[in-house]
Amino acid sequence: MLAGGVGGARFAAGLVQVLPPEQVAVIVNVGDDFTHFGLHISPDLDTVCYTLAGRENPDTGWGRADETWHALATVAELGGPTWFRLGDRDLGLHLERTRRLQAGQRLSAITRAVCQAWGVRAQVLPVTDDPVPTRVRTTEHGWLDFQDYFVRRQCAPRVQDFEFVGAARARPAPGVLEALAAAEAVLIAPSNPWVSIGPMLAIPGVREALASKTVVAVSPLIGGRAVKGPAAKMYAEMGIEPSALAVARHYQGLVHGLVVDAADAALAPRITAATGQAVLVTDAWMPTPARRRALAQVTWDFAQALRLAARG
Amino acid sequence: MLAGGVGGARFAAGLVQVLPPEQVAVIVNVGDDFTHFGLHISPDLDTVCYTLAGRENPDTGWGRADETWHALATVAELGGPTWFRLGDRDLGLHLERTRRLQAGQRLSAITRAVCQAWGVRAQVLPVTDDPVPTRVRTTEHGWLDFQDYFVRRQCAPRVQDFEFVGAARARPAPGVLEALAAAEAVLIAPSNPWVSIGPMLAIPGVREALASKTVVAVSPLIGGRAVKGPAAKMYAEMGIEPSALAVARHYQGLVHGLVVDAADAALAPRITAATGQAVLVTDAWMPTPARRRALAQVTWDFAQALRLAARG
Repeated sequence: MLAGGVGGARFAAGLVQVLPPEQVAVIVNVGDDFTHFGLHISPDLDTVCYTLAGRENPDTGWGRADETWHALATVAELGGPTWFRLGDRDLGLHLERTRRLQAGQRLSAITRAVCQAWGVRAQVLPVTDDPVPTRVRTTEHGWLDFQDYFVRRQCAPRVQDFEFVGAARARPAPGVLEALAAAEAVLIAPSNPWVSIGPMLAIPGVREALASKTVVAVSPLIGGRAVKGPAAKMYAEMGIEPSALAVARHYQGLVHGLVVDAADAALAPRITAATGQAVLVTDAWMPTPARRRALAQVTWDFAQALRLAARG
Repeated sequence: MLAGGVGGARFAAGLVQVLPPEQVAVIVNVGDDFTHFGLHISPDLDTVCYTLAGRENPDTGWGRADETWHALATVAELGGPTWFRLGDRDLGLHLERTRRLQAGQRLSAITRAVCQAWGVRAQVLPVTDDPVPTRVRTTEHGWLDFQDYFVRRQCAPRVQDFEFVGAARARPAPGVLEALAAAEAVLIAPSNPWVSIGPMLAIPGVREALASKTVVAVSPLIGGRAVKGPAAKMYAEMGIEPSALAVARHYQGLVHGLVVDAADAALAPRITAATGQAVLVTDAWMPTPARRRALAQVTWDFAQALRLAARG
């Protein structure tokens, strides 16, 4: 599966209840990685690892459970930037990852070690070990670094364009193409198509690896709104009416099936007519572990059905 | 005054009770600075700032009061190094200092900002803004980085030599030579002469700036033993019997007076005979704020008396 942050992590947590975790590979966006206070921070990767390790903050979806904020309190006393909420337990991962990167280890190897230490049995793969920082062009401020746009400015600026710096020269991390080649089906989590899935598809080899696979996406938009994050706002600002249909068009030529919420059932015929995608209508909101499992189960079954149909 | 870590910080805390804090400049060793997890850490400077800010851990002398250890607990879970005890509140300072250094600010300017934020009215000056990492040559392991020797190996290896890398080309930080030039007297805290005071004296201009001043040192050795740290062990391993007399000889030609503990009263005549230094015998152990103040008071009065005597 391909995953961004909170939506991707929650879908992954469902999928490892449906399939043997060892048979699940979660390929994660690193376009939102950045350096802050000299530390390498991988927000999407962290959210996926914390969630699969059962260490996530269940209220926010990001960050650690039982977190404390003493380091950031010191930063605040000293007048430093506090817009990116770094908890103390969370900082430990950034410290150790930065230490290993500076010692020459690859992000993918570090992620494997982190998952092993925390008993995560699924394979979690950063899509690439190369830096591919996402930038967002905005009406008000021109090009912004992603976390500046996303966290510091809370997605308030109006987007005009996206850039995945370095993506054209990036190589998929070890294991990524292998996992895609071995996959029975590829599921695209209900993550932001613009800034979570898009940066991964921009890396040479990833989109191509999907071409021979049954691919099913879960719409991150429900009733024209994003469960979390700026996906709907981005569609509107890019001149596209935000809806599950917009998501279907976004993934046109890439996915064979789209999972949409019951609130969007009426769009199903239009989606199929416009894109040729099969549509599965279900409850696509995942506030609880049981709902994550249920969504992963129907999505996986849907993908298997499409795969067998394509074969037959 | 010249200061290393805990002994220097405690003496400084006494001195700002004796003199108006605004008239006290504390010039601090940075030979023990190092980079850990990508963060710039200045242990002696931190200990001085925490102590003068009333934020120090009163039990250890280093680190912050009311500290938590959640970041390091994560590092431990991930198999990372935990030999350098980084608390969560402490980390906040390292984060913000590293951020400012990477933004081009000087260590001295950052230290000024930290002191201002915490209401420290004394002037705290890193002796230099240039890197001057201390290395220790040991019988067992050859040359070791200072914190590797000092913290990781807990001073166990046998020392043969010291090196202050880059010191010969380092420049005193802005304010250092000015503070020394303006000083009525210079006090050398009961810090380690080898690795706390020595690195500062190795920077061109510092020793020279003391030449025209009345300089009084407080012996860090009491009854041949260091109150804290490896000073006595270092003297022995360098082939010198550890004692207040050894300290006097170490500072020969530099200081006019030495403050020794009552336990070393019998050494006073030998010190004066061997080095020409005046000796003041007092209670040189500072377990409480009152004792820090008392030691600073008699040391300052001693320096003033020597200054007036030299003048007259």
